[in-house]
Amino acid sequence: MSGSSFGKLFRVTTFGESHGSAIGAIVEGVSPNIALNESDIQKELDRRRPGQSSITTQRKESDTIEILSGVFEGKTTGAPIGLLIRNSDAKSTDYSKLKDVFRPGHADFTFYMKYGLRDWRGGGRSSGRETAMRVAAGAIAKKILSHHHVQIVAYTLAVAGIYAKKFDLTAIESNAVRCPDPDQAKLMIEKIEETRRNLDSLGGIVEAVVVGCPAGLGDPVFDKLSARLAAALMSIGTIKGVEIGEGFKVAQMRGSENNDIFYHDGQKIRTKTNHAGGILGGISTGEDIILRVAVKPASSIAQEQPTVDVSGNPTTVKVTGRHDPCICPRVVPVVEAMIALTILDCLLIQKAVNGSW
Amino acid sequence: MSGSSFGKLFRVTTFGESHGSAIGAIVEGVSPNIALNESDIQKELDRRRPGQSSITTQRKESDTIEILSGVFEGKTTGAPIGLLIRNSDAKSTDYSKLKDVFRPGHADFTFYMKYGLRDWRGGGRSSGRETAMRVAAGAIAKKILSHHHVQIVAYTLAVAGIYAKKFDLTAIESNAVRCPDPDQAKLMIEKIEETRRNLDSLGGIVEAVVVGCPAGLGDPVFDKLSARLAAALMSIGTIKGVEIGEGFKVAQMRGSENNDIFYHDGQKIRTKTNHAGGILGGISTGEDIILRVAVKPASSIAQEQPTVDVSGNPTTVKVTGRHDPCICPRVVPVVEAMIALTILDCLLIQKAVNGSW
Amino acid sequence: MSGSSFGKLFRVTTFGESHGSAIGAIVEGVSPNIALNESDIQKELDRRRPGQSSITTQRKESDTIEILSGVFEGKTTGAPIGLLIRNSDAKSTDYSKLKDVFRPGHADFTFYMKYGLRDWRGGGRSSGRETAMRVAAGAIAKKILSHHHVQIVAYTLAVAGIYAKKFDLTAIESNAVRCPDPDQAKLMIEKIEETRRNLDSLGGIVEAVVVGCPAGLGDPVFDKLSARLAAALMSIGTIKGVEIGEGFKVAQMRGSENNDIFYHDGQKIRTKTNHAGGILGGISTGEDIILRVAVKPASSIAQEQPTVDVSGNPTTVKVTGRHDPCICPRVVPVVEAMIALTILDCLLIQKAVNGSW
Amino acid sequence: MSGSSFGKLFRVTTFGESHGSAIGAIVEGVSPNIALNESDIQKELDRRRPGQSSITTQRKESDTIEILSGVFEGKTTGAPIGLLIRNSDAKSTDYSKLKDVFRPGHADFTFYMKYGLRDWRGGGRSSGRETAMRVAAGAIAKKILSHHHVQIVAYTLAVAGIYAKKFDLTAIESNAVRCPDPDQAKLMIEKIEETRRNLDSLGGIVEAVVVGCPAGLGDPVFDKLSARLAAALMSIGTIKGVEIGEGFKVAQMRGSENNDIFYHDGQKIRTKTNHAGGILGGISTGEDIILRVAVKPASSIAQEQPTVDVSGNPTTVKVTGRHDPCICPRVVPVVEAMIALTILDCLLIQKAVNGSW
Repeated sequence: MSGSSFGKLFRVTTFGESHGSAIGAIVEGVSPNIALNESDIQKELDRRRPGQSSITTQRKESDTIEILSGVFEGKTTGAPIGLLIRNSDAKSTDYSKLKDVFRPGHADFTFYMKYGLRDWRGGGRSSGRETAMRVAAGAIAKKILSHHHVQIVAYTLAVAGIYAKKFDLTAIESNAVRCPDPDQAKLMIEKIEETRRNLDSLGGIVEAVVVGCPAGLGDPVFDKLSARLAAALMSIGTIKGVEIGEGFKVAQMRGSENNDIFYHDGQKIRTKTNHAGGILGGISTGEDIILRVAVKPASSIAQEQPTVDVSGNPTTVKVTGRHDPCICPRVVPVVEAMIALTILDCLLIQKAVNGSW
Repeated sequence: MSGSSFGKLFRVTTFGESHGSAIGAIVEGVSPNIALNESDIQKELDRRRPGQSSITTQRKESDTIEILSGVFEGKTTGAPIGLLIRNSDAKSTDYSKLKDVFRPGHADFTFYMKYGLRDWRGGGRSSGRETAMRVAAGAIAKKILSHHHVQIVAYTLAVAGIYAKKFDLTAIESNAVRCPDPDQAKLMIEKIEETRRNLDSLGGIVEAVVVGCPAGLGDPVFDKLSARLAAALMSIGTIKGVEIGEGFKVAQMRGSENNDIFYHDGQKIRTKTNHAGGILGGISTGEDIILRVAVKPASSIAQEQPTVDVSGNPTTVKVTGRHDPCICPRVVPVVEAMIALTILDCLLIQKAVNGSW
Repeated sequence: MSGSSFGKLFRVTTFGESHGSAIGAIVEGVSPNIALNESDIQKELDRRRPGQSSITTQRKESDTIEILSGVFEGKTTGAPIGLLIRNSDAKSTDYSKLKDVFRPGHADFTFYMKYGLRDWRGGGRSSGRETAMRVAAGAIAKKILSHHHVQIVAYTLAVAGIYAKKFDLTAIESNAVRCPDPDQAKLMIEKIEETRRNLDSLGGIVEAVVVGCPAGLGDPVFDKLSARLAAALMSIGTIKGVEIGEGFKVAQMRGSENNDIFYHDGQKIRTKTNHAGGILGGISTGEDIILRVAVKPASSIAQEQPTVDVSGNPTTVKVTGRHDPCICPRVVPVVEAMIALTILDCLLIQKAVNGSW
Repeated sequence: MSGSSFGKLFRVTTFGESHGSAIGAIVEGVSPNIALNESDIQKELDRRRPGQSSITTQRKESDTIEILSGVFEGKTTGAPIGLLIRNSDAKSTDYSKLKDVFRPGHADFTFYMKYGLRDWRGGGRSSGRETAMRVAAGAIAKKILSHHHVQIVAYTLAVAGIYAKKFDLTAIESNAVRCPDPDQAKLMIEKIEETRRNLDSLGGIVEAVVVGCPAGLGDPVFDKLSARLAAALMSIGTIKGVEIGEGFKVAQMRGSENNDIFYHDGQKIRTKTNHAGGILGGISTGEDIILRVAVKPASSIAQEQPTVDVSGNPTTVKVTGRHDPCICPRVVPVVEAMIALTILDCLLIQKAVNGSW
């Protein structure tokens, strides 16, 4: 109820602040007898890690994962998996001057209003650092899903109005902005570097595609797959919008345009188009699931901004230190993780309630 | 786990199919000693009811609510409130010809894939009829919230690219499309009527504003107020996108533009702008909460569309009967209800965990 | 969170007061395609119904069940099942004189302390009448379990120190006290009738046996099958103790006596004795599950008792009307229902998390 | 859903196996601004620790607790509290000979049936070692409850039929068996030592009293305080029975004997007797809450017992090593912890749903 848990059958609970001694998670609902080791998780964490390219924060966190339980002789046992990362670069002195100041765009003020106090070291629990545990748990989910031929891929679709025009999924990991269009990626990176020099930050759009998701996942009414994915993604701190399939474009479409026509492809029933983005009535159709999220420009910028202190007195703040001028490339693995956690949970529920005995 | 429950402390569980004998709900977590009667609920149901104007479906459902429990001598007792509406216009014969056909854009196919059978009478559980119980439960939540000076208002912002330009909230209920701009409302209504004559349907955008929400609601990490609102709204069958504050516009903004600057207004700390839409770090700021949802054009259209039957054989379908050419005006009270359920639940959680003793 | 829901995947939520207009339930997690009709439920309700014998209350409630949703063409659809019973014998005038008085042994005082008001008509939500919906939902669970060869039988083991000595399970339904020993049943019934003439009531012990439960149900640590059964049974208003297998006798046993020895019976691994009552480490062993519950003497007695009114002034109360002098025979179907709900829920969870894909 | 979580608003999730690298927990729902440090927790862990007296296991686990998050500058922040204990005495070689053998009375067989494999090192997840995290989380709950004047005390009431006759609560911690009667404690200890010499173990009864619990806690129907306490206690591995107030004695009582008579003591309404054990209709009365649990004789005994291996072949097993001949004194702090977790959770729920705003 404190908001630190996600999922019903496949369930992740996390703890940890950006400048505390460690962050961690407990992952429940992992089926037994699945091969799992730390490198399965580490490779995903490395995609989210700070300091991986010139356009991300230069903070150094090795983010080394430790599996504390639930795996025995290289296989999951069905017991909950305890995960731990010690915080190595926790220089809270960087933040002592922010102790009494509310940074614009951050959760400093709202945490203070909620709890009556706050951990001012780098945002504490509100820091994006908590997403490391989403990625770690998501790596377990991804591994299980891959056994069921479900693949999830996300990428930067747009930065500052510069859109990918080609979609070469093999190119995503080869450029610093994680864009499937290497040419547009260059323009994005130039724009990001220019913006950082101007002590500012940029927003963008991340798109995700789920390939191989079986039809029938998600539950009617309140637990629609669409609703659960929306919650999963909107729970990422920098996301301000989520859309599925045509998304906001449906507002200007007619029913005859937007309805996807069913046909039989010789093997199974499919739809000729996929305006719905793979979800009808909140349940997966078996077509690709397509989502987009709006990523806000990072709130931490090195230019001076007016604000108030905890007593309401006017002051100014400059968020120096090592920050991401555009968070999109590091949001990509977090988006994938949240989708993986959601889809796997729906798979388990489907197995329980509706599967054969 | 079947997806029929919403909320944690203020919790609604619904049942019912469009052409079954009744729909109903159980509302748990209602504080005792609150004056409540059926008319509090009926007035909201009347806003959602079919047949209320020329641009909505002409089906006749009186949707008369009955409170079965939890209220004694005009006041809530703390016991769960049982709600019931008998279905009066349940002509399932209208649907018998659709028995073996998958209607494009509907959940017929996905329900069949999920359950191996389906209630083909008007969509069964996947019908928009279930939203009546959201509105009924939401009416209770709205009444409780009004005691706390929280007001929720939604309206049609756009239909088919025609946008409201004036925002006169008193005008919303005086036009059939529930638009705060009476002039643009006329254009919208004309467009909807023309589209119906063309046997087609239209999408739109519904916007909602929450006034008076205290700062501090929502929980960090997975239960952010933004995430919970996104789930609440995306669980409405016709919604394909949700955005908060600037929403997808943040993708083209710089941090220095998007950050809302704090100041003290003499009474409390506020922000000069509200790009964030009233939520920072997933927690309410005390400013207005602003949301928009993308409403797809209704899937039921009276023109002939190709499709397949349950065996995969090609056929065609014409969804005759009485349908909404644009669902926006009837989505408005559903959007308000889902927001009310979410905000009240967050208020109760805040009271439990963080309030004074 | 209001306490009206039971179960995780197979989930029942109930509403209703003893003297309101109706009681009802929503049952979620029912697998699709299971034959179900009202008589499946009615036959179990008839075992719990008041007025069925000379030693139960003479109130007349026909308790006619109505299935409102979730069943179509004689089969479950996977949608939630709405259940309703209209209250027919709701003479609240019987209770008007109890309006301001706290009956000893009843929940009048505690409800008043909890909510600040109470529905004084027959106990309102605290009335044993709510157990009708446990039995109704349990009937659905029992039907599903019977397809998996799981049988649950409960019976009166003892009343006022008179114990069954023979265990003829076919005799249970043929005597008014639901005892498997017809001779001892006679003694029990005589004692109950004598006690009623003395304006008093009697307690007893109900025992239950689950035959055919597969090994592997229940989850480690907090959701042990034993813990879940204990909660299920202790949630019945009249139960003050729960024990499994040897129960409180273990306090006087040595490990070498209490440990059940494993052997292979040619087909599978079993235990030679069953001191554990079919549960080891909180997980079912495949042996019979054996439980006993302590049933308190009904609090409603027709003799005058001192008490206080809501203002704390001394007064007396005589609970006239139609009450059960010994509730054991009517608790029997409620015990069976709660066990059925628990076991089925554990079966679904086992299928989800640990079953083959 | 994996069974590793307890509570709704005050929620504990644990992980860890007896011979893994660490055990841990995440505690959610801790109100902010409460002074908390590691010694608050350590002192309770020391009561549960192995090796504390001659009649407990001689294993050496220092069980040093580390708080990883949720506490800042000596106070709770409202963020989840991460707790960790490294396993120091994890000699799994002790267990390698048990790898393929099912120990009688243990969960070896049931875990194997559930998961298809098991962590054979000291019981893995089924080990009593997991209770350390119950005690750690319970210590936090106890500290919060003490601010509300709620005190929980448990003690050994009986071992092998030897009962406490005096109840000097100050004597509990001064004898190795945690009995409130020092004279009977001596007899118990002698009996335990004799039993250990005979390579056997003994059961007993632990009783608990909650003083100062306000009236009104617990929810009607399924979440009765009695039901929640029963689940909490029956989830402890060695418990086979739970009773409240008169418990199983009610089976032989008449209503006129068992009903507690209300009176006004000048300050508030109370009951003259407390047969109900402080709970009426599942809700606390404000009187002392009184519970008893049946503790089975430890399954680990050093004498040779027949059993089977994982293939079903007959063999024998002697559980050598360092085990508790009577687990009662070490169950005492676990019982207190589980009660504390339950009562605090109910307090938070009461505050949320029924408290003043």
